[in-house]
Amino acid sequence: MSALAAAKTSKATIKWLAAPTSDAWLEQAIAHPFELLIDHAHCERKAAGAVVQLMFRYLCEPGLAEVLSPLAREELEHFERVLTLLKARGRYLEPLAAPPYGAVLAKQIRRDEPQRMLDSFLVAGLIEARSHERMSLLATHLADLELRELYADLLASEARHFGLYWRLCEQRFQRELIIARLQELAEVEAGILANLHPQPRMHS
Amino acid sequence: MSALAAAKTSKATIKWLAAPTSDAWLEQAIAHPFELLIDHAHCERKAAGAVVQLMFRYLCEPGLAEVLSPLAREELEHFERVLTLLKARGRYLEPLAAPPYGAVLAKQIRRDEPQRMLDSFLVAGLIEARSHERMSLLATHLADLELRELYADLLASEARHFGLYWRLCEQRFQRELIIARLQELAEVEAGILANLHPQPRMHS
Repeated sequence: MSALAAAKTSKATIKWLAAPTSDAWLEQAIAHPFELLIDHAHCERKAAGAVVQLMFRYLCEPGLAEVLSPLAREELEHFERVLTLLKARGRYLEPLAAPPYGAVLAKQIRRDEPQRMLDSFLVAGLIEARSHERMSLLATHLADLELRELYADLLASEARHFGLYWRLCEQRFQRELIIARLQELAEVEAGILANLHPQPRMHS
Repeated sequence: MSALAAAKTSKATIKWLAAPTSDAWLEQAIAHPFELLIDHAHCERKAAGAVVQLMFRYLCEPGLAEVLSPLAREELEHFERVLTLLKARGRYLEPLAAPPYGAVLAKQIRRDEPQRMLDSFLVAGLIEARSHERMSLLATHLADLELRELYADLLASEARHFGLYWRLCEQRFQRELIIARLQELAEVEAGILANLHPQPRMHS
């Protein structure tokens, strides 16, 4: 089964997100497309950094590095694509304060193994799932055609990515255990986003 | 000028290495090709991690992320290539104690900017230059034809990489300053390798 087919299966059978993105976020995003784009560049490079870190932590675990290394490369490729678009518009990376989203999710990861590994995969998958959902909204609702095209191109990969994290879980943990923990984490994830963060961000 | 042409120019005019690799290292390497290959996989993934770290540190410095991000991707590609070869031979990544090389070189990096940036580029370039030199030896002297081919393929990239670090220096620092500091660091680098480390490593 191809990675994309697997992602589609996961999407059909697994509910990653406990609540949809609010209209308030979409309004905020539409009003600040460039701040969101710079934040998106940061999201892609942070995702790459997190994947590299995950790979280093479980380096000798068979079947992991050969999945995570290409994933890190893909996140870097997306980062470069956003950077190219920023430069074409006379902008560059700018320091942006991160919303609480990533830090609160990281705190949910239990410290002991193998729970730590399961939680790490699920949190990463949840972030990909939310990014996918929000990029779909941006690809449909932004006025700027070039930005719509960018998000439309990238969101297919995000879907593949959360399918990939799902398979990494399934290869190592019981399905009931994964689904129960995913539900808990998905509630937390949706809870963080329930109140719109005042600064326009991909995960505000 | 292409990246490769720039690397060639640098090679012609800049002396990265203060001393050539000893025959003792080559003998050790030839006697332990597989331990060296596993260490090489670790070198590639560590190089990728170091590049990502460098990119994160100087994220908003114009002209840097668009060079470092593709470089990190290339190091990951090499890592994957070595991993594929290991798996084809029924092996996988194994934990290997690192020789002192990387840690001693990292200690040479001065803490204050802009010296920290210059030293970071030069140390990274020196490691690439040494890897290039040693891979050339392996590509010529190993008995295993597949390993020879691997190192021959990868060493062209290493040459490009130290040319790239040289250009990052030249875009930001005076040539005399770079050359003087490179000489100091190159002496340290050659000094670390003057006594063969007992464990067979890419940088023993």
